Amino acid sequence: MALRPIALLTDFGFRDPFVGICHGVILRENPGIPTIDLTHGIARQDIRAGAVALADSVPFLPADAVVVGVVDPAVGTDRRAIAVEAADGKIFVGPDNGLLTEAIERCGGAQAAFEISRSPWCLQPISDTFHGRDIFSPVAAKLAAGEPIVASGVAIEHDNLVTLDVPKTSMIDGDLTTAVLSIDQYGNARLGATPTDVESFALGSRVEIDTDVMRRQATYVRTYADAENGDLLLIVDSTDSLSISVSGGDAAQMLRLEPGKVVRILRS
Amino acid sequence: MALRPIALLTDFGFRDPFVGICHGVILRENPGIPTIDLTHGIARQDIRAGAVALADSVPFLPADAVVVGVVDPAVGTDRRAIAVEAADGKIFVGPDNGLLTEAIERCGGAQAAFEISRSPWCLQPISDTFHGRDIFSPVAAKLAAGEPIVASGVAIEHDNLVTLDVPKTSMIDGDLTTAVLSIDQYGNARLGATPTDVESFALGSRVEIDTDVMRRQATYVRTYADAENGDLLLIVDSTDSLSISVSGGDAAQMLRLEPGKVVRILRS
Amino acid sequence: MALRPIALLTDFGFRDPFVGICHGVILRENPGIPTIDLTHGIARQDIRAGAVALADSVPFLPADAVVVGVVDPAVGTDRRAIAVEAADGKIFVGPDNGLLTEAIERCGGAQAAFEISRSPWCLQPISDTFHGRDIFSPVAAKLAAGEPIVASGVAIEHDNLVTLDVPKTSMIDGDLTTAVLSIDQYGNARLGATPTDVESFALGSRVEIDTDVMRRQATYVRTYADAENGDLLLIVDSTDSLSISVSGGDAAQMLRLEPGKVVRILRS
Repeated sequence: MALRPIALLTDFGFRDPFVGICHGVILRENPGIPTIDLTHGIARQDIRAGAVALADSVPFLPADAVVVGVVDPAVGTDRRAIAVEAADGKIFVGPDNGLLTEAIERCGGAQAAFEISRSPWCLQPISDTFHGRDIFSPVAAKLAAGEPIVASGVAIEHDNLVTLDVPKTSMIDGDLTTAVLSIDQYGNARLGATPTDVESFALGSRVEIDTDVMRRQATYVRTYADAENGDLLLIVDSTDSLSISVSGGDAAQMLRLEPGKVVRILRS
Repeated sequence: MALRPIALLTDFGFRDPFVGICHGVILRENPGIPTIDLTHGIARQDIRAGAVALADSVPFLPADAVVVGVVDPAVGTDRRAIAVEAADGKIFVGPDNGLLTEAIERCGGAQAAFEISRSPWCLQPISDTFHGRDIFSPVAAKLAAGEPIVASGVAIEHDNLVTLDVPKTSMIDGDLTTAVLSIDQYGNARLGATPTDVESFALGSRVEIDTDVMRRQATYVRTYADAENGDLLLIVDSTDSLSISVSGGDAAQMLRLEPGKVVRILRS
Repeated sequence: MALRPIALLTDFGFRDPFVGICHGVILRENPGIPTIDLTHGIARQDIRAGAVALADSVPFLPADAVVVGVVDPAVGTDRRAIAVEAADGKIFVGPDNGLLTEAIERCGGAQAAFEISRSPWCLQPISDTFHGRDIFSPVAAKLAAGEPIVASGVAIEHDNLVTLDVPKTSMIDGDLTTAVLSIDQYGNARLGATPTDVESFALGSRVEIDTDVMRRQATYVRTYADAENGDLLLIVDSTDSLSISVSGGDAAQMLRLEPGKVVRILRS
């Protein structure tokens, strides 16, 4: 049986061997399991940033991937640990805290779910602080090696997984109020709104971005090629999301944006 | 013959291609060698932090792993370069500066050791500044591909490898004096003491943590689940080590802890 | 047919899943493709730093590697996207902005080149901001899987690829004027000059390093073993380049060096 690839996303960072230890646990099961590090640089305990990154990633993974997500501030409490089979065949493993839910939706939604806190595949003893090592990685490794998900734990309802609040987006008198979902490495600020929310805006038109702290002119464009260096832009990004960017610059820095920040987009 | 996995731990960081070049050297030997990056974010030239991370990692690696550790401030001097076979079958490759020793002990101790500075497997010419590329990676690759360790270099005594000083830990009148071994990504401070040193402390009891700069109340707990957000804790971490933590926070920042810092734990 | 390894170098950083998504696209083509992350920590949009790192890396890659480089400030404009076959058999994929050119030279120069902006292997729709995902990774994956490069796009002249300006180096009255090419993780400053430029300097002799801001005594040495801790050195580094270093310290910090900074090396 072919080994399924495992894709990992965590907030473990790069200073400690936490990520490497998870890889060790996986390759100890079978050294031929292909692995993909989606990122381990999610801001510490920022479940929403992890959820956004995971949802952006899954459309580009191998069809049979086992996806492990660990941003888990409540590790060691009674929050559930889950393995979920999505409609497209992918399997998701991680805490039931909203981290996985949007990514599972992108894969057609959950078809089956299992509580794995006492999975027979866990490392023993299970620590209270490192379930990535003791629960999620060994369970994912068994699934990647072809073990059936029904053997991973106890079947649970698959339609009441924890979901994250979506930032409120409203359109009043043609002006959009939304919030920053996440900031990327280049300082681009992903918004809670979608291109559909602003379909009444003409491409190339001027808008105002109002953060309460400052108000700045920007241009609504489809691509960076339509902008000059240094231009402030409202743009549709590579994930088809609405984003605030600066061509060749850092929009988050320029406008002091951070996740959760409310912004209004006003037609000039 | 099956290829053995190679696990790498260095202080090479992430800005330069040093780590990637080592992977290139390994896959040039055989592109099927499985590799694990334990971490490359060890603080520059901090041998102790590397030794702690390596010792934490080895119990979770495949049984036949070849482990390469490179934190090597004395590269280019006459410090020895070594390949060591441990009692459990793992092989360790790196500088003989104490980085590997504790990890080797966790694997049952050294059974055989070789000086590899002039190994026939080295890249030529051997640079004076990048032995990760020129000595450690090519030697590890040959060992992973099945070459015998006796061919790696010159046999040396395996019982006088360099060891690191262990921070002094003392218990006087029921109060513990120890030092910080390392700080992790979440700001948890690993101590030189072990849970055994504080077995006279009742779980759930209050203690005082005294750093000379400040003195703070804390609770001695077994898991984060026993704590409220923001609580300062003396806790047994996922490596079964004694650690100072803040639930949902950063203990190193709160108490201005850093490696080597002496702390006293006083029963209230 | 054997799968060719893919080596990746980008400025995508570690916070976002950009790198992981590229790996997903590659393993979706074939999960057996070996991959090497050279580095993803190139300073944002610093084409020269990427070019230096890539040229340093290629001599140590497997002979049949497919090398993907993405530092691409002009993504979405009409800059060309290219696949280039080098004389030694390696293939290079990335933007035609000078990033790849020096590395290709190290592999014997270009033998064939193709414009791949509309390659049949691209993901559809092609975004304007993430060609690493939509063009470079899928094209590299097909090439790694054995597809012929002539099918990757439209043949173009292979001898007019974009090149980077080389910093001017001059020797007047035995004094060298050059510039900093790049700074590494340890604070070593690579210079535009080569050891040949200073072959009139005696090894072990004293020199002065003049940055306009400050002037400091240094020693010209072949290896760190010839220096005391804290010594300022002019040294031949592991890539056989001339570099300014501090033994056990950070030369860039000490002399406030950064890429592009002009420095003069004066014989004392």
